[in-house]
Amino acid sequence: MKSIGIDFGGTSIKIGVVEGKEIIAFADPVITGDYPTPAALIDAIADVVTSLREQYSDIVAIGCGVPGFVDFPTGTIHNLTNVPGWKNIPLKDELKKRTGLPTAIDNDANAMAIAEWKLGAAKGCDHAVCLTLGTGVGGGVIANGAMVRGAQFVAGELGQTSISYSGRLGAYNNPGALEAYLGNNEFAADAIHDYAAAGVDKNISDCTPVKLAKLAEGGCEIALKCWDKFAQRLATGLASTCWLLNPEILVIGGGVANAGPILFDPLTKHLHAQLSAPFKDHLKIEKAHFSNNAGILGCAALALDEVE
Amino acid sequence: MKSIGIDFGGTSIKIGVVEGKEIIAFADPVITGDYPTPAALIDAIADVVTSLREQYSDIVAIGCGVPGFVDFPTGTIHNLTNVPGWKNIPLKDELKKRTGLPTAIDNDANAMAIAEWKLGAAKGCDHAVCLTLGTGVGGGVIANGAMVRGAQFVAGELGQTSISYSGRLGAYNNPGALEAYLGNNEFAADAIHDYAAAGVDKNISDCTPVKLAKLAEGGCEIALKCWDKFAQRLATGLASTCWLLNPEILVIGGGVANAGPILFDPLTKHLHAQLSAPFKDHLKIEKAHFSNNAGILGCAALALDEVE
Repeated sequence: MKSIGIDFGGTSIKIGVVEGKEIIAFADPVITGDYPTPAALIDAIADVVTSLREQYSDIVAIGCGVPGFVDFPTGTIHNLTNVPGWKNIPLKDELKKRTGLPTAIDNDANAMAIAEWKLGAAKGCDHAVCLTLGTGVGGGVIANGAMVRGAQFVAGELGQTSISYSGRLGAYNNPGALEAYLGNNEFAADAIHDYAAAGVDKNISDCTPVKLAKLAEGGCEIALKCWDKFAQRLATGLASTCWLLNPEILVIGGGVANAGPILFDPLTKHLHAQLSAPFKDHLKIEKAHFSNNAGILGCAALALDEVE
Repeated sequence: MKSIGIDFGGTSIKIGVVEGKEIIAFADPVITGDYPTPAALIDAIADVVTSLREQYSDIVAIGCGVPGFVDFPTGTIHNLTNVPGWKNIPLKDELKKRTGLPTAIDNDANAMAIAEWKLGAAKGCDHAVCLTLGTGVGGGVIANGAMVRGAQFVAGELGQTSISYSGRLGAYNNPGALEAYLGNNEFAADAIHDYAAAGVDKNISDCTPVKLAKLAEGGCEIALKCWDKFAQRLATGLASTCWLLNPEILVIGGGVANAGPILFDPLTKHLHAQLSAPFKDHLKIEKAHFSNNAGILGCAALALDEVE
C-alpha cells in the first residue's frame, strides 16, 4: 500500500511516495516562500500530489506534518511557526477537497516520532519516548500503543520540560527548559565557556556537535567533559519521562545522536545512575533510525491510519 | 453493581463495599503485622470478603491496591515496601481461588488516581495527571482515556521526576526528585530553615502543612513565602507533565492540598507563568475529591473493569 508523506517546513515542503518503510519517489520540493497565500501553497502541494498519482495509481492516502499547532481530529492548523499567514487553515479539508484522498495532518515532531514507532527503532513498542536534538529539542510520546497528543493535541514538548526549577529560561519563560541546555547553540555556548575556562579560545563554529564529537573521539578531556555534562542533563530529563511513563525505549534523534558512543555511553551511565531497577532493567536507549526522511516516512505512516 | 475495594497498607488493610462512589460498608481493618505469612494474611482478607458477601449478595468483583511493585496483568506482587515476606506472591490468583470473584491488583498510587479519574475530580477526562503530596509524593497518569502503567507497570512515579539536574537526591540517588523538596518532612525542614533565617525558632511539629497553612492564613510573611516556594517547585514538576502529556486536569491530593487557596493560588500563578497558551488555557487544577477513602474507592472501581 502506498501513501504520500508531506514534510511541511518553514523553508521548503518535501514530498515523497512511501511503500513500507521505503521512499520510492521524491517530488521536487515546494518552496514555501514562493506562494503568497495559504490557498496558493495548498494548490501547489495538491498539484504535486496529482502528478505523483499519475506515476503511482495506487496511492491511498496523504499525511502532512507541519511546524506548528494543529487540531488533530479536524486537521485545522491553528498557527505555524515561521510561516506567516497560516492561521486557522483547514488544511485537512482543503487537501481532501483538492485530491479526493483521505488525509491526516499532525505536528512535525509527532510525525518524526510516528516514523520511529511505526517503522523504526521503536517498532512494535507500546510505550516509547522519542526525542529530537537539534537547534530546538522536540519529541513525541507513545503510551499504551497510541500516540499521546493530549487534550489540545500539543503533547510531546520534551524540549520544554524542566531540569531545573531555578535554571535557564526556555522560550516561554519556563525555568530549566531542556532546550535551554541541550539545543545545538546552547551546547556550543557551554563548550565555548568550558574551553575558555581552560584557556582555549573556541567559537561557535568550532563547537558544533560534529566537531565536539571528533574532539572527544581524539581524547580531548574538555570535549569529553562537555559531552558528559550534556549527557547528565539529558539523562535527568529522560529519567523524568521514565519515572512518569515507564517506556520500553528511548529513541534519540537529531544531529547530536550521530555522535554515537560519545553521547550514548555517558547517557546510558547517567540514566542507569538515576533510575531504579524496574525502570532501567529492560530500558532500551537507541539512536533514531531515520534522520532527514523521518518527516516524510512518519506522515506517510500516519496517512495509512486514515484508511485502515 | 457492588464491588469490594481493598486498600492494603503497611500497617493495616482497609476493606469496604462500594456502590457507585459510595462506600456502603466498612469491614474492621485487618492488621497487617498480625499474620506471619502472606498466605495467612491472604486467608484473613478472604475471610473478610466472605463475610461481606454474606451481607451483600450482589458483589461482583474485588480490587486491591498494594504499596509496591505489581505485575498488573497477572496480579503477581514482585515486592512490597514495608511488608516483609511479600516477594513474588500471586495475589490475584490467590484471592480469586479463595473467593471465586474476578480480582484486580494494582499499585496503591494508581488506585488513588483511578478513584479521581473514574469517580472524582477527573471524572470524564481522557487526559489527567493525579498527584498525592504526603510524606512521600506519588501519582498516576491517564492518557487517551486509559491508565498509563508503562512497560513494567511502574509508571506514574511523579515524586521521582526531577526539578533539578544538580539538586537534592531522591530515594534512588536521582537528582532533583520532586519528593526531596515536597515531601512533608522536606517542606517542614525548608520552613524551619526559612524561619531560622528570620530569627524565629521552629521545630518540625510547628511546620506541618496544617500549621504552615494557618500561619499563612494569619498573614505571616515567612509562611506565605514558604508556600510560594513550595508552589513554584511543584509548578515546575507539574509543568513538565503538562508539556509532555497536555492533560486537561491536574488533581492534587494528600494533606497539603487541604491548605486550599494558600496552595492553589500560588500554584496556579506559577503554572500559568511557566506554560504557553494551548497548555494552560483549558487546564484545570483541582483538589482531589477523595482523601482517606481514595484507595478503597479506586480499587472498587478498578475491580469493575474485570467484569465489564
